Parts: sequence; structure tokens; C-alpha cells
Amino acid sequence: MGIVLNGGTVVTAADVYQADVRIEGERIAALGREIKQPGDQVIKVDGCLIFPGGIDPHTHFDLPAGDITTSDDFYSGTKAALLGGTTTILDYATQFKGESLQTGLENWHKKADGKCFVDYGFHMAITDWNDTIAQEMTTMVHQEGVPSFKLYMAYKNVLQVDDGSLLQALRQAGKCGALVCVHCENGDVVYDLVQKACQEGKTAPRNHPLTRPPEVEAEATSRVITLAQLADAPLYIVHLTCSGALEAVTKAKLQGREVYAETCPQYLLLDDSYYSSEGFNGAKYVISPPLRPAQNQAALWSALQTGILETVATDHCAFNYKGQKELGLEDFSKIPNGAPGVETRMGLLYTYGVQSGKLNLNEFVVLTSTNAAKLFGLFPRKGTIAPGSDADLVVWDPSISSEISVERLHQDVDYTPFEGFKQQGKAIRIFLRGRQVCRDGQLTQELPAGKYLFRNPFLRRKDGKNV
Amino acid sequence: MGIVLNGGTVVTAADVYQADVRIEGERIAALGREIKQPGDQVIKVDGCLIFPGGIDPHTHFDLPAGDITTSDDFYSGTKAALLGGTTTILDYATQFKGESLQTGLENWHKKADGKCFVDYGFHMAITDWNDTIAQEMTTMVHQEGVPSFKLYMAYKNVLQVDDGSLLQALRQAGKCGALVCVHCENGDVVYDLVQKACQEGKTAPRNHPLTRPPEVEAEATSRVITLAQLADAPLYIVHLTCSGALEAVTKAKLQGREVYAETCPQYLLLDDSYYSSEGFNGAKYVISPPLRPAQNQAALWSALQTGILETVATDHCAFNYKGQKELGLEDFSKIPNGAPGVETRMGLLYTYGVQSGKLNLNEFVVLTSTNAAKLFGLFPRKGTIAPGSDADLVVWDPSISSEISVERLHQDVDYTPFEGFKQQGKAIRIFLRGRQVCRDGQLTQELPAGKYLFRNPFLRRKDGKNV
Amino acid sequence: MGIVLNGGTVVTAADVYQADVRIEGERIAALGREIKQPGDQVIKVDGCLIFPGGIDPHTHFDLPAGDITTSDDFYSGTKAALLGGTTTILDYATQFKGESLQTGLENWHKKADGKCFVDYGFHMAITDWNDTIAQEMTTMVHQEGVPSFKLYMAYKNVLQVDDGSLLQALRQAGKCGALVCVHCENGDVVYDLVQKACQEGKTAPRNHPLTRPPEVEAEATSRVITLAQLADAPLYIVHLTCSGALEAVTKAKLQGREVYAETCPQYLLLDDSYYSSEGFNGAKYVISPPLRPAQNQAALWSALQTGILETVATDHCAFNYKGQKELGLEDFSKIPNGAPGVETRMGLLYTYGVQSGKLNLNEFVVLTSTNAAKLFGLFPRKGTIAPGSDADLVVWDPSISSEISVERLHQDVDYTPFEGFKQQGKAIRIFLRGRQVCRDGQLTQELPAGKYLFRNPFLRRKDGKNV
Amino acid sequence: MGIVLNGGTVVTAADVYQADVRIEGERIAALGREIKQPGDQVIKVDGCLIFPGGIDPHTHFDLPAGDITTSDDFYSGTKAALLGGTTTILDYATQFKGESLQTGLENWHKKADGKCFVDYGFHMAITDWNDTIAQEMTTMVHQEGVPSFKLYMAYKNVLQVDDGSLLQALRQAGKCGALVCVHCENGDVVYDLVQKACQEGKTAPRNHPLTRPPEVEAEATSRVITLAQLADAPLYIVHLTCSGALEAVTKAKLQGREVYAETCPQYLLLDDSYYSSEGFNGAKYVISPPLRPAQNQAALWSALQTGILETVATDHCAFNYKGQKELGLEDFSKIPNGAPGVETRMGLLYTYGVQSGKLNLNEFVVLTSTNAAKLFGLFPRKGTIAPGSDADLVVWDPSISSEISVERLHQDVDYTPFEGFKQQGKAIRIFLRGRQVCRDGQLTQELPAGKYLFRNPFLRRKDGKNV
Repeated sequence: MGIVLNGGTVVTAADVYQADVRIEGERIAALGREIKQPGDQVIKVDGCLIFPGGIDPHTHFDLPAGDITTSDDFYSGTKAALLGGTTTILDYATQFKGESLQTGLENWHKKADGKCFVDYGFHMAITDWNDTIAQEMTTMVHQEGVPSFKLYMAYKNVLQVDDGSLLQALRQAGKCGALVCVHCENGDVVYDLVQKACQEGKTAPRNHPLTRPPEVEAEATSRVITLAQLADAPLYIVHLTCSGALEAVTKAKLQGREVYAETCPQYLLLDDSYYSSEGFNGAKYVISPPLRPAQNQAALWSALQTGILETVATDHCAFNYKGQKELGLEDFSKIPNGAPGVETRMGLLYTYGVQSGKLNLNEFVVLTSTNAAKLFGLFPRKGTIAPGSDADLVVWDPSISSEISVERLHQDVDYTPFEGFKQQGKAIRIFLRGRQVCRDGQLTQELPAGKYLFRNPFLRRKDGKNV
Repeated sequence: MGIVLNGGTVVTAADVYQADVRIEGERIAALGREIKQPGDQVIKVDGCLIFPGGIDPHTHFDLPAGDITTSDDFYSGTKAALLGGTTTILDYATQFKGESLQTGLENWHKKADGKCFVDYGFHMAITDWNDTIAQEMTTMVHQEGVPSFKLYMAYKNVLQVDDGSLLQALRQAGKCGALVCVHCENGDVVYDLVQKACQEGKTAPRNHPLTRPPEVEAEATSRVITLAQLADAPLYIVHLTCSGALEAVTKAKLQGREVYAETCPQYLLLDDSYYSSEGFNGAKYVISPPLRPAQNQAALWSALQTGILETVATDHCAFNYKGQKELGLEDFSKIPNGAPGVETRMGLLYTYGVQSGKLNLNEFVVLTSTNAAKLFGLFPRKGTIAPGSDADLVVWDPSISSEISVERLHQDVDYTPFEGFKQQGKAIRIFLRGRQVCRDGQLTQELPAGKYLFRNPFLRRKDGKNV
Repeated sequence: MGIVLNGGTVVTAADVYQADVRIEGERIAALGREIKQPGDQVIKVDGCLIFPGGIDPHTHFDLPAGDITTSDDFYSGTKAALLGGTTTILDYATQFKGESLQTGLENWHKKADGKCFVDYGFHMAITDWNDTIAQEMTTMVHQEGVPSFKLYMAYKNVLQVDDGSLLQALRQAGKCGALVCVHCENGDVVYDLVQKACQEGKTAPRNHPLTRPPEVEAEATSRVITLAQLADAPLYIVHLTCSGALEAVTKAKLQGREVYAETCPQYLLLDDSYYSSEGFNGAKYVISPPLRPAQNQAALWSALQTGILETVATDHCAFNYKGQKELGLEDFSKIPNGAPGVETRMGLLYTYGVQSGKLNLNEFVVLTSTNAAKLFGLFPRKGTIAPGSDADLVVWDPSISSEISVERLHQDVDYTPFEGFKQQGKAIRIFLRGRQVCRDGQLTQELPAGKYLFRNPFLRRKDGKNV
Repeated sequence: MGIVLNGGTVVTAADVYQADVRIEGERIAALGREIKQPGDQVIKVDGCLIFPGGIDPHTHFDLPAGDITTSDDFYSGTKAALLGGTTTILDYATQFKGESLQTGLENWHKKADGKCFVDYGFHMAITDWNDTIAQEMTTMVHQEGVPSFKLYMAYKNVLQVDDGSLLQALRQAGKCGALVCVHCENGDVVYDLVQKACQEGKTAPRNHPLTRPPEVEAEATSRVITLAQLADAPLYIVHLTCSGALEAVTKAKLQGREVYAETCPQYLLLDDSYYSSEGFNGAKYVISPPLRPAQNQAALWSALQTGILETVATDHCAFNYKGQKELGLEDFSKIPNGAPGVETRMGLLYTYGVQSGKLNLNEFVVLTSTNAAKLFGLFPRKGTIAPGSDADLVVWDPSISSEISVERLHQDVDYTPFEGFKQQGKAIRIFLRGRQVCRDGQLTQELPAGKYLFRNPFLRRKDGKNV
């Protein structure tokens, strides 16, 4: 017995067509007409688009940051993700200094186990590199299903690694089938600029972007691309925000390098004028890299169109304005960095991308789902609507209009950076591995049903990468 | 009653998956498992890849050239195309000076009518621009299904138009839903260089590339991109060959311009050393633009990977070496320009692209089929394997090895530029709109079954282009 | 007996130093201290800068344009030049269609003979190219002292030549020691845009820049650079105005090509907002290429600093507003193209270049004098202050402030585009070949004393060019 | 009583002319004809070129390196410099870790005092940055005549500073009139590559260039340009070697940044094939950055022509092959880095630059003398031939041919990297501040006569820099 979605329009990375979708068990069994089998349940989805479930490859749930922890844990975070149309998230498990990767990974498994409403995997963030860790990297890839790692060029004295470590990590990744994700800002320069600002008594949130100007991101992006080249390794740039960094990525791609990059809705839709909003309100937008001057937005949209950018992730890292962001009331450098977004990504990109004519439907799917699956070892299990793939499906009614407000969101945080933004279309049904888990904005399954995803190694073109 | 292909691997622009393909009538009815209906014929295709039928968007069949005519007409040309895995061709119908577009189109319909083994459409080549022709362009798009036109910046005094005409044609195309295809070489410069060579007694085929150096192509490409920008029109560059022209296209794309470009197998696999082959043999490679120094090949392959180039077409324009090419025995400028390729395109691109690791299977489909369908108003009818699409299918057995030789080809011409090249894989079954028309390299239908394709207008991103 | 200028600061392309300058006869005899000879006249120039006399390499005096002629002939034009600090001009003698170069040159000699207050030479503008003219080019270089020629890519049906002619002219120039100067605008496109504007009833001056957008200049500049490369010839771009054209020149220079370029004060200081001035006033600024959007100015100044641009010329081509510009009252395309500037060049560049900190004194001399001398076969006779060079000297008092007004200028035209602009500094004494010809803004010699300059061929780097 | 050089051709950055040069005391008094005063000594220099004395802005004399010291101290080094046509050197005084700048400077004064045959100044190399040093920097500029400083991005754990220190040093320099010189190689990456090579048993000299590939230089160059931009400071890149670094400098210059760069004869004339010479011979070429693949040479020469590179220095840092280079017999990373060149610079650049047609005489003077004087606070005292300037003159007889051999050189080191290279032309007389100190290749003054040069602060364009 299966389920047949009847009357909708299937959208994949390449196609848009009207067809029934037949689900059997956890998977898609067939697409087309006359595919109903005896006993199948038929669900009418006339007028709706059917997308592959969204994949958000960049979240931070239950992340300690100094004395506090992000307001969203895996329970609230993945519930919000699901209700927003995202059926898979990849969270950054962190190895803190002195820990093994194994310890870091176990810690994150504990945080997530049994609490996820969507399927999930982990990248490992490495903050302490040495030969032992290098060996563990291979173990992670092949025995733990973790083929992606993150290193930070920023956050001096905390998360930042030096160029030698970065080079070695890239080299090891290139050998063992891993993809290295990098936060690109020159941490030494940021540290100096922050210190200088503080010494000069510049303590308001508006100083945040001034101490992390676009140049420090462009420089770091360019640098790590060089390192990846020297290491003969593929590379994934997280949360790219500005035209200078885009230039570096473009140049690398045109030279045939395996360099990939993600941006986020906040960089596409918000700009650095938000830091000047009244009172301490600018603290809500204290994220790193910061929001940029508005002219960068056009460059980012253009890069989504040309394929210079592969993915739109959220970097969801939620801190309450009250009590958490307020830690920096007297000193912007004490404001915890991060903002929520896991629930609003699909709606924003549909509304401000597809509806506005900037993206076509295929590009929407590519950016919200397919490319993340291909880059992070989940394709074709996730990221497409094809026979044999997991039946992670979003039935999107494009006719529903709404407005984004923190009051209607399920993220466990007291604000949204997108308050008042419009949303066109809505996920009216969501299927996770064949089960309808959401209907008209409500969960239909009270218990978290998300599973850990053991992912495949990164396949390089020279290894005969076929997808 | 339908047909079910069982056991193969379906490849589209985005996906690769194992599934049955069910054909009903002329179309694909369903994909997946358990989709067989009572009465269906089942064809086993275990171990085979199933590609969308190839689309060759650049052929010249039955084309007069001075006192002679290309050796392949629509009958022999489309038969060869089909046997090579191509189920759709777009031929360049030509308006000669003084003719109306309607006359030119009718002439080509007469040439093709009832003689085509594959589905076919026409681009209109315009050699004589004026206000009447401008009006006819709109008619062509909306009443004749011809939404693409070609103009020549080369062939002074014959086909070449001046920049004013080109600008006006682009402007008109931008208004009426057409895409302008342009042959980019600076004809004035070529004319001068040819005259100079002849005056200096340089008459051998090796002078052909010297009188059409890469710079004249790069210049013309850059110029027409400027014209398209001024005209607010999309643009398609035919047979791009060199890194200079690639730079111009890349720059335009990065600026968000709707500029598209095609290359051909001969530019990917052959180089200008062929002009120095013994005797008059170089005449076989006298095509325009000419073969280039070998270092351009890497740039072209890289551009196929990054999506800077959209399509691989053939520019099939066959002249026999004996009797036709030989017209230029005493003077290379009298050698008819052109070479055959419609039959070898799919096999070469699979062998030297996919097998060599330069392209993945999705890219192969994108370049040989999907993009041509999308750019030329045929998608999703052609160019993909999806429910509702025409069942134009190539069942490709990747295990068969062969070697290309004129003796085994069906093109009606006495040589192939790819003599001795390897071919890995072979189309063992080909379906055209649901009918199996080819089996193990033999036609299974003696009568031409190709239909004229009334194509849709070009949709621009700003018009809400959705695919 | 000589003259000693005492107490001034000598400025050359490389140096700034305090020293006496001793003139003997027509030449500079010595520089330094204690160089006075018995009988010498000593002229005190304390506090003044001593510049090499200005060289304006781009004027149009006594030029017929349809039924009218420029308001400045050689008498009034060179008088104005001299009073502005320019002691050498190079005027564009024109071969009109059907004429020989010899005829064109003789016509210009007649116009200039005995009427010039400054030394002068001629470039030959070629509008009608053929083999006979090609041979004459060599004669011009070696027997007439005319080693520079101009061709037009604009002014369709009037002055424009096609790419074949341009290529041949460049090739011939490369062989015979000549430098080709080119007006870079795509004339076919301009013609089309003008016709289109007129058909649409857009007749006001503000349509002038819209029908000659920067893209047509950038395209033509890029194209002629390609032609020069194919012809193996050096190239000089006249009146470059925009960042697109600068990019083309920059790229060529970085590739080691002998490509040189000039701009004019009007492009550095005025912008396209002038076309919107009230009534028909915009006609005063109808020049080709037109004034550009203001952001191009910064790019031009930057190019003067980096040496991407070699010279600042005037393209002085004066038409009275009353009676001449007014011919286009009903149709902007009938407005004679051109504006005056020969008298204001030195003062504007000193004021808005040196005084504003954009240029240093050496750069001022390089741009107003030295480079023109080096490029056009006059160095070291002109263009520097060195023993043996012509004593063409401008004694500049940097302390005098004034304002530019048509009422105080000597150009024979009823307006100046720079009305109201400030001028800092003034030529208080001017020497032409050793004779003081100007004092405190007044001529001290009533009779024109300028001589025709028989110039040297262009020396290429590969010919062992030593300066 | 003075000296008159009669019959020569004076060459400056801008001019080439025949004139007498009159010296009075330490300075040039006059240039021209009839400038002889009663009692003057006349020296005939017919047929000779007269250049401004060479300025080598990059030497390392008497430099400790681990347990050894460079073989050339100030006595032998400056003697060799002088005999090669260089009359001014700027040596890198080094502050070692823990020292004050004052201490470092005093140490170098002691090394140089009374031992220099040419005039000399010091840059200060800073290896230990903090707030105290920042304050000392200002003192150095204004009270010690040291307006230039060097920081290293390479030599991890020894000389290397982090990006924060570099940023702060640049910022301080921008404020106090200093120019920061930077050694651009990514030291972390080099350290890793060297360690890796050693671990893999790759110990021969040929591994030297492999562990410092061009990418690490290009990356560091690009990075420090970003830092200089953020610090609003001018920047001077020492010993630039490769096209990647050139691209970064070019881009910065085109954006109007005050970024300057030097290269050295070894990078123009030698390539990385030297590392494969037999036995341990490659050790002679172990310098940092290393010699590069030959294709970089054309890019460097082109950059000298276009002015992208300002200076040709030597980075003279001599170690004997026997006993010093041999320290690395078992391990290339133990080979002391550096090579001699101070004596051969002028001859090589004249021979392989001017004689070969790559540079004209003006460019030769610009690159060997004028630009160094302008950038490092010595102009117009040094760097030109003008009244009032120091009479540092090189009388160059272009007719003398010779061959470079260690046996004929005066450098105190047992090899020259340029053994067997030709030299065309020779300094037959050299004047240092008016005294003839060299005649026909022999010193005419036994005692060192060089003086310490108290240099002027760096003037920025925005400060109204006038030269």
C-alpha cells in the first residue's frame, strides 16, 4: 500500500512537469500517470508544486557559546525547520580544544538523539588540529558517515586555526574523501579592529560590521582557495556575503578548481543599515560575517543565477534578544554572534527569488536541496524527486500569502530578523521518508521521527564523480 | 498498451537512477517500479543507460554553397543523426539575398518534408535585413514556430551583415521572443587576410587558419555581446572555439547577461596541426572558424564543466573530399567550408567526455540534449526523461567498444574528420516519440518518421522564465 | 648674447629643481648656477615654475563641417593656444574623399602658413583608403614630416572607414614608422541609434549622449586594439572618455602592446548632466564622444596617475553657439560636433590636477607636453627643458588666481564649456624657440612666429626606441 | 674650481641629451654648453653615457644568520657596489626579538660606520612588534632619518609577524610618514611544506622551490595589500618574483592604491632549472623567494616596462658556497638563504635590458636609481642628474664587452649566480658626491668615503607629494 500524490507539479533540479507521485514505504516508487496501485491512498494536491524536501546544510543547535547556549536545541530547531519545509539539516558538531573528534561527535549525537523532527547529519568543526586528529578524520568519513569538516579562519584564540593547520586539514580531507568547509574572515585583523574600536570607546552594535569589513572576508576566502589548491583538496566556503569573496570563488571556478560556496537569506535580503536601528536593536543582526552594504545583494543573486554559489543555507544560530544578545549592551564585542533562520529559508527564497523573477523553479530546488545533497554525500537519497529516493516531499501551495512574524514561528527565540517580510506560498503537506509529518502548518506526528544520516564520502571529478 | 524499458539507469540533467520507463503512445507515461500495465511490452535493457534523445541544434543539410550543395541532404543527414543517437536536429534554413523569410522557410520545408528520420526544426539565417524582414521575424516566431535566427559577422559580400543590421535584428528579437544566433568572426578582417595570403601566393590549406586567427573570433564575439546588451536581447554564440571568445562570454555571464554559447566536437578534439597533414588532406578540416592551437581545448572542456558553454552541436556541413573540397586545390579560399559530424557527436562526447572523467553523466545529457531543448523552445517536450515528455530515448550500452571509420558511418560523405577515434558505448535501441526506430545500429523503420517541430518563443528570465 | 631666467623652479617629466635657465638663440644652452655669460639678459622669475611649453596634440582649426567651418582658424586658434601656455599644436589635416594625402596636406599648409603663433605639425586624417594612399603614407612620413595618421570608426557615410581599411592602414603604418590615431566609436551603431531617436521624435540635445553610449566607444576601442595587434602596429586612441575603453587599453598595455591613449579636460571635468541644462544650452556640449556619467571621471584621473593614459589634449573644434550650434535647434543630430578648449587646457589641468593633489608637477609636464613630444616625433626638440632642446618655456606664477570666462579668452568662439571654472596659476612669460612671445597675458610679438614642424618617424620598442 | 665632464650623453629618468656636466664641490652645478668656469678641470667622456649613480635599495651586509654571518660586510659589500656602478645602498638593519629599534639601528651603525665606499641608509626590519615599538617607529622616521621598515610574512618562529602586527605596523607607518616593505611569502605554509619534505626524505636543494611555490608568494602579496588598504598605508613589496604576485600588485595600482614593488636581476635572468644543477650546486641559488619557472621572466620584464614594478634591487645576501651553503648538504632547509649581486646589477640590467631592447635608457635610470630615490626619501638629492643634486655620476662606456666571473668581482664570496653572463658597457669613471672614486674598474680612493643618509619621510599623494 502506498500513497499517491495526484494533481501536482513535480519540480526537480532540471524538470518541471505534471505527474502523480507514488510513495511506497519510505521511498518514491514511481512518477507519472496511471501509477496508482490497488490499496493506495490518493491525496489530491491540485495546483500545488511538489519540491524535494529542503536541506539546510548549516545549522547550530544546542551550541554552547561561552556561558550561554543557543536558544534552539535540536527539538525546537528541527521542528521549526520541518514546518518551514526543510526535511534534512546538517549541524556543526564541534570538537572543542583538547577533545577528540570522536568525543565531539558523541556529544552531538547525545544532543540530537531522539529529538529531531527531520533527518540530520553532522559536519565536524575542528578547533584543535594535530596528527591524531588527522587520523580521526579518516575514521569519521568512513566509519561515522561524517565526510565534511569545518575550520575557522576567524575567532582568534577561540576557534581560529592557523594556515598550517588549515593546509594540513585540507590535505588530509583531499586524501580521505572529505570536504572542508571554512569560515573565511581574517581573525587576526578582526581581533585588532575590535580591540581598537573598544579602546576608542566605540561600543554600540553599529561597530560590529566596521570591525569585520568585507575585505577581511575576501582576503580569507582568497587565501583558503590557495591553500586548497596547494593541498589538492576540494573546498566549501560557508556563508559568503560580499562581492570581493565572490570574485575569488569565481576566479577559482573558472580555473577548474573544486571550490563551492554557500550564502544565506540574511545576506540576500538584509543589509548593514540594520545595525543603525534604534537603541540596541542592531544586536539582533550581530552575526559573522556581518550584513553588508546593499550593493552586495545584487552580486549574490547574480551568483545564484550563474551557479557561482551552490547553496542557500541559514547558519541558524539563535540567541534571544532578551538576556542573551543583551550581554553586549555595554560592549558590542560581547554580543553572542548569530541569528535564527531555519524556519524561514524556503519561504523567503521562494518569495524573493522565484516570485520576484530572480530564480526559476529549478534553481530554487537546486539551491535549497539538490546541491546540498550532492556536495554532502546524500544524493540521490535526498535532494531530488526520483524513483528510489527518500520520499521527502514538500507540497507547496503557491497561492497562500502570509507575513513573517516571530509570533507565528516555531523557532525557540524571541525575534526573527525577517519580521514583517512577506511570504508567498506555503508548505501545506510535508512528507519525511514517506510519512506525512506536517499538514497545513501543523505537525501530524507528535514524536520526532528524524534519523541520523550516515553520509557518503565526497566524490571528486577526477575520481569519476558521476553526479 | 505501452512499452516498458526494464532494468536500465535513467539519466537526466539532474538525476541518475535505476527505474523502469513506461512509454504510452508518443510520450513517457511513468518512471519507477511496478509501473507496468496489462498488455505492455517489456524490453529488457539491463546494464544500459537511458538518455534523452540527442538534440543537435546546428546542422546544414542540403545547403547550396556556390555551385555545389552539401553532400548530405535531410534524408541521409537525419538517418546518420538518428543512428548516432540524435533524435532531433535544428537546421539553418537560409534566407538568401532578396528573399523573404517566408520564401526561405518554405524552401527548407520542401527540402525536409517527408525525408527526415528525426524530428526537426528550423532556425532562419538572415542575410538581408530591412524593415520588412523585421516584421516577418515576429511572424516566424508566432506563426511558424521559428523562434531563433542566425546572422553572420563573417563571409563578407555573401552572408555578412553590418553592425547596424545586427543591432536591429537583435532588438527585434528581444521584443518578439526570439533568440539570435551569431557566427562570430570579423569578416572584413578575414577578407583582407585571405586576399593578402592569395596575393602572396599562399594557397595551401594550411593558410586557412592563418587567415582566420582566434583574435577575429574573440573580437566579433565581444562586439556582438555589446550589441545584444544595447539591444536588450538574448544572444547565442554558435561554434565558439577559443579562449579569447570564452573570456568575452564569461564576462557577460558574470554580469548577468543572457548570453549562451555552443561549441562542437571538432574544436574539443582536433587542433590546427591537422592543416599541416600531407598533400591536400588539410582541406578536410577547412571549417570556419578553423581548428585552433591545442591549448584552447582545455579551456573549452573547462567551460563545459562550469556551464560557460551550454551546448555541444556539430555544425554538420558535409562536402566530399573528392570533387568538392578539391575545388580549392589551387586556392585554399575556394575550398568549401564545412565538415561532417552529426553521426559521431554523441559517441565522441561520451567517450572523450564521460569516459575520460571530464564530464559526468548529467553534464553529458545537459550538453547533448537538455540545454538545446531549453534554449530553443522544445522543453520539456524534448530534452529530458519525464512523464509527459516525448519518448525520445537512447538506450546506451556502455560496454561496447568500437572505432570510428567512414566505412561504418551513414553520413553521405567520403570522409570523417574523426577517422580512427575510439568510441566507448553505443546506442543499441533508439525510440522516437515512442516508436523504436533503431536497433543494434540498424534502422527498424524504413520510412522517415520525423516531424516538424513548431517551437515555443524564447522565454527570458525577466519574463518569468521558469525553466 | 643670451637670456637667463633666474630664480625659478624648473619642472620636467622627472625633475623639480631650482636653477637658472640659459637660452641662446632658439635653444636651451644651459641649466644650473653661474651659467650667465657676458652680455646675457637676466630675467627674474622668482617664485615661478618653469614648464616646457605645452603641446596640444589634437586640434581642429579651420575645419569645414558640412556648410560651415569651425570658428577658430589657425590665426585665432594658435593665438589662444599660446596665451594659454601651449607652444606647439598638432592639427588634423584631412584628406577628404577622392583626394590624395598630398592634396589634403597642401590644403592644410595653406590654411596654416604664416598664421600660426605657435609651432605646429599635422596629423593626416584619412577618409578614403586604397593602395595609392598606402604608398603615399610612406611619403608623408619620410618626406613631409607627417608620421601620424587618423582614421575614424564613427561618422558613418562621412569619415568612417571599415575594419579592412583600418587594418591595412595600421599594417602600412607599422611598416613605415607611423602611428595611427583612431576615433573609437562604432559608427554603424551610432547611426542606428540616431535614426531611431529621430524617428521617435527625440530631437533635443539630451539625446546626443544616449545615441553614443559608452559601450560603443568601449567596443570600438577594444576592436581597434585587436586590429593593431593583427597588423603589428602601434596605436594611439584619441579622446578616450570612459572606464570601458580604459579597461581595453589597460589590458593591452599589460600584455605589452604599444597602445597609447589621450583624454581631454572636458571628460575629466564635465559630465553628461550638462546635456540637460536649460533650453538649447546642452548643444554647447555636443561633442563626440559625448560627456559621460560622472563616475567615469575618477577612472580617468586614476589612469592619468598610473600612466594608462599618456596625454591630455583638447580636441579643440570650435563652433559658435549662435548661428552654428543652432543649426540643430530642431534636431540634435544637426548640431555641429565639437567644443573649444585649446586656451584653457594648461590652466585647468594645473588647477584641477596639481592644485587638487591629483597630479604631481612631473605628471603635469608629462601629460601636457613630454609624452606628446615623445609619441609624435618631436622629442627631445620639444617636450622637455634640457640643453639643446627648443627654448619653449612657460613661466608659471602659481600665486595668481582667476576665473575662466569667455569674455577673457582669445578663442574666436562665443562660449567656453568651462565658464566659471577657477584657474590657479598663470603663464606670465612664454618663450617660443628663445623669443619671449607673451608677457602677462599679452602677446609681445604681433606677428605669428610659429614654424611648421617636420617630425620624426615613430620609433618602436623593438626598433631600439630609446626614449 | 670644479670639474666639467665634457662630451658625454646625460641620461635621466626622462631625458637623453648631449651636454657638459659641471660639478662643484659635492653637487652638480650646471648642465649644458659653455658652462666651464675658470680653473675647472675638464674630463673628456666622449662616447659615454652619464647615469645617475645606481641606488640599490635592498642589501644585507654583515647579517647574522644563525651561527654564521654573511660573507660580505659593509666594507667589501659597498666596495663591490661602487665598482659595479652603485653609489648608494639601503641596507636592512634588523631589530632582533626583544631589542628596541634604537638598539637595532645602533648595531647597524656600528657595522657600517667608516666602512662604506658608497653613501648608505638603513631600513629597519622589525621582528617583534608592540606598542613601544610603534612609538619608536615615529622616532626613527623623524629623528634618525629612517622612514622605511620591513616586516616578514615568512620565516616562521624567526622573523615572521602575524597579520595583526603587520596591520598595526602599517597603520602606524601611514600616520608617521613611513613606508613599510614586506617580504611576502606565507610562512605557515612554507613551514609545513618544508617539514613535509623533510619527513619524506626530500633533502636536496631542488626541494627548496617546491616548498615555496609561487602561490605562497602571490597569496601573501595579495593579503598584505588588503592589510595596507585597511590601514590606509603605502606599501612596498620587496623581491617580487612571479606573475601571481604581479597580478595582485597590478590590481591594486589600477585601483589607485599606493603599492610599489621591486624585483631583482636573479628573477629576471635565472630560473628554477638551476636547482637541478649537478651535485649540491643548486645550493648557490637557494634564496627566498626562490627562482621561478622561466615563464615568469617575461611577465617581470613586461612589468618593468609598464611601470608595475618600480625598482630593480639585489637582495644581496652573500654566503660562501664552501663552508656556508654547505651547512645544508644533508638538508636543504639548513642552507643559508641568499645570494650575492650588488656588483653585477647595473651591468646585467644594461646588458639584458637596454642592449636587448627590453628597456630604454630612461627606464634603465628609473629602475636602477630614480624610483628608489623617490620612494625612499632621497630625491632629488640622489637619483637624478640635475643642478643641486649630489654629483653621484656613473660614466658608462657602452662599447666595452666583458663576461661576468667570480674571479673578476670584488664581492667577498666564492661564487656569483651570474657566472658566464655577458656584460656590455662598463662604468669607467664613478663620482661620489663630486669626487672621482673609481677609474677603469679600480678604486681611486683607498678610504671609504660613504656617508650615512638621513632620509626624508615618505610623502603620499594625498599629502601633496610633488615628485
